[in-house]
Amino acid sequence: MNDIDSLPIRDELRGKSPYGAPQLDVPVRLNTNENPYPLPDPLVERIAQRVTEAARDLNRYPDRDAVELRAGLAHYLSRTAGHPVTREQVWAANGSNEVLQQLLQAFGGPGRTALGFEPSYSMHALLARGTGTGWLSGPRNEDFTIDIDAAVRTIAEQRPDIVFICSPNNPTGTAVTEETVLALYEAAQAARSDGHGALVVLDEAYGEFSHHPSLLPLIEGRPTLVLSRTMSKAFGAAGLRLGYLAADAAVVDAVQLVRLPYHLSAVTQATALAALEHTDTLLGYVEQLKAERDRLVDELRAMGCQVTESDANFVQFGRFDGAAGSHAVWEALLAHGVLVRDNGVPGWLRVSAGTPEENDTFLDAVRAVTKELKEKSDT
Amino acid sequence: MNDIDSLPIRDELRGKSPYGAPQLDVPVRLNTNENPYPLPDPLVERIAQRVTEAARDLNRYPDRDAVELRAGLAHYLSRTAGHPVTREQVWAANGSNEVLQQLLQAFGGPGRTALGFEPSYSMHALLARGTGTGWLSGPRNEDFTIDIDAAVRTIAEQRPDIVFICSPNNPTGTAVTEETVLALYEAAQAARSDGHGALVVLDEAYGEFSHHPSLLPLIEGRPTLVLSRTMSKAFGAAGLRLGYLAADAAVVDAVQLVRLPYHLSAVTQATALAALEHTDTLLGYVEQLKAERDRLVDELRAMGCQVTESDANFVQFGRFDGAAGSHAVWEALLAHGVLVRDNGVPGWLRVSAGTPEENDTFLDAVRAVTKELKEKSDT
Repeated sequence: MNDIDSLPIRDELRGKSPYGAPQLDVPVRLNTNENPYPLPDPLVERIAQRVTEAARDLNRYPDRDAVELRAGLAHYLSRTAGHPVTREQVWAANGSNEVLQQLLQAFGGPGRTALGFEPSYSMHALLARGTGTGWLSGPRNEDFTIDIDAAVRTIAEQRPDIVFICSPNNPTGTAVTEETVLALYEAAQAARSDGHGALVVLDEAYGEFSHHPSLLPLIEGRPTLVLSRTMSKAFGAAGLRLGYLAADAAVVDAVQLVRLPYHLSAVTQATALAALEHTDTLLGYVEQLKAERDRLVDELRAMGCQVTESDANFVQFGRFDGAAGSHAVWEALLAHGVLVRDNGVPGWLRVSAGTPEENDTFLDAVRAVTKELKEKSDT
Repeated sequence: MNDIDSLPIRDELRGKSPYGAPQLDVPVRLNTNENPYPLPDPLVERIAQRVTEAARDLNRYPDRDAVELRAGLAHYLSRTAGHPVTREQVWAANGSNEVLQQLLQAFGGPGRTALGFEPSYSMHALLARGTGTGWLSGPRNEDFTIDIDAAVRTIAEQRPDIVFICSPNNPTGTAVTEETVLALYEAAQAARSDGHGALVVLDEAYGEFSHHPSLLPLIEGRPTLVLSRTMSKAFGAAGLRLGYLAADAAVVDAVQLVRLPYHLSAVTQATALAALEHTDTLLGYVEQLKAERDRLVDELRAMGCQVTESDANFVQFGRFDGAAGSHAVWEALLAHGVLVRDNGVPGWLRVSAGTPEENDTFLDAVRAVTKELKEKSDT
């Protein structure tokens, strides 16, 4: 094997590492915001049925436009997110990462820029880099909310082509208000000088877990506002890789100019359709996870931790002594068999809401680790 | 719905249409080089089994590095393509389009160029455009083979960062000789002035159908030679979207810097693994298709058509009177219930090898259309 540095890779990739959380074999894995509930047996059976049908026709290319699936996702959004959308307004791809990549290819790219308010989902910046889009980092308040005035000012000054708003925000859990989205959309409309407003991407990957309703209704009359979603979390299907967006139908036309033809396999489409048939059961698990998330917030606060307000299926907690402090706690929790996520936000860690048992184990581990560290610092 | 032109899409996308063959409901579809043989029942059952297992764990992210699948693909190549490769030398993605896109992201991109010898697989140029890579069109001989001297000269003059060689070439069916690949690789090594050779991508999507052995063994000792393959054709699994590459392990490291994390779903991995278990049956279909391809060549020639030498599961035939002539024949065949592909190569059309019955229907249609057109031109 040759060294990667001997290859003609792009200069900006030199010395970089692939993105991804450590995949460690640990009893309690609460590091990637997975849904802890396996799919119910009747759904597993239905997936096998639907995939069997798809496999009989697997020598043929899949439906390139995923018409049935997009109709199913449109129906789901219309029913649960407070606003009717049609299948022409919905687009699906292999995970919301691919949806966002397609948006960046169509609306970003070389000579253009994208802005996000950090800390946020770190793939936004990585996807920008991967598509040759310049990345601009906008500010957040101390409590990780977005300061409207500062954000509007940043947009006016930096004139980005794409603005990412993640709500609930990963890794902080923070929800964004309707007022914030409206103010940022207005600023984004005015930002560009060529008569076209910038694209505003509202990443609601964790939308179903929020205390607040979806901001989907805001796409009405706002042709450059795009809502992105995923089946990874609320549908308990991280292994499926199915993300989608809802927007004006013209945005769907635009991503079709850059999507790989037949990007979505027939087995993926079949599996996603099966999962949509079991929406109500899966949303029942979401309710359980919301209750567990709220319990994590309460119990962590009761033991003296700082906890960021969370509308997601995870909780950001701290506050430890800088990056070294949070990393020490991450390691200590791992020693107790609990894997959480160190997202590189100094002083903070992120824990996914697991089953009640997993959460108990985690909370016990935090108690033990806090005690250990206190004893260590006392000596 | 707003007009797409009112959106802030990239200027070079304005006025463009999405890539893709017309999906028409026609009795005999020989337009997208699909394998006409459905997967055998035991394989369909095995897919259902493997997907059921995967679905039980679908709430978890898939194996990000697809280790078992890459080992399976490495075993397949080692057994059938004349050269041992390890799983570290193999990478898989959603169709060879995604594999090629990742290569372009890592080795092409803004400020860089890719060269192909046209006519060839038109996605090479589209993927270049989609990744901000400049596209250079190299020459072919009148018989659609690559002129080594002209190609080497083009590489020396244009100094591309990536050279695409498609063998067997789509849409012409033409195989490329080992001598050609070696000469182009050498020229590509010398092309760049920064000490790194250009990447040479040998697209063997139709490799299993060739009269000649795979050129996989050439990757040995050539760190910037990449072989790409797909399960769409030889494995009869166009609906699965599974492409892969084999190269020096450092190339695999490089694409991991740009791949979307968890790009390959658990159901895709499970289905591909099931298909690999049935390799021998599927390669039996390949032998039948090779015989049918050779029959198409012979019978088309016998009725006076010009036919390009084919090593693929399709045949390029003509020669009609320019672009208008080939389009008229395309339409006339469609009227007879047979859909072939007009790839925009003036005077030529492409037909996929179907089942013996489909091929008979196609050949009858060509006979009838030839007669109709002759009568029309006589009057």
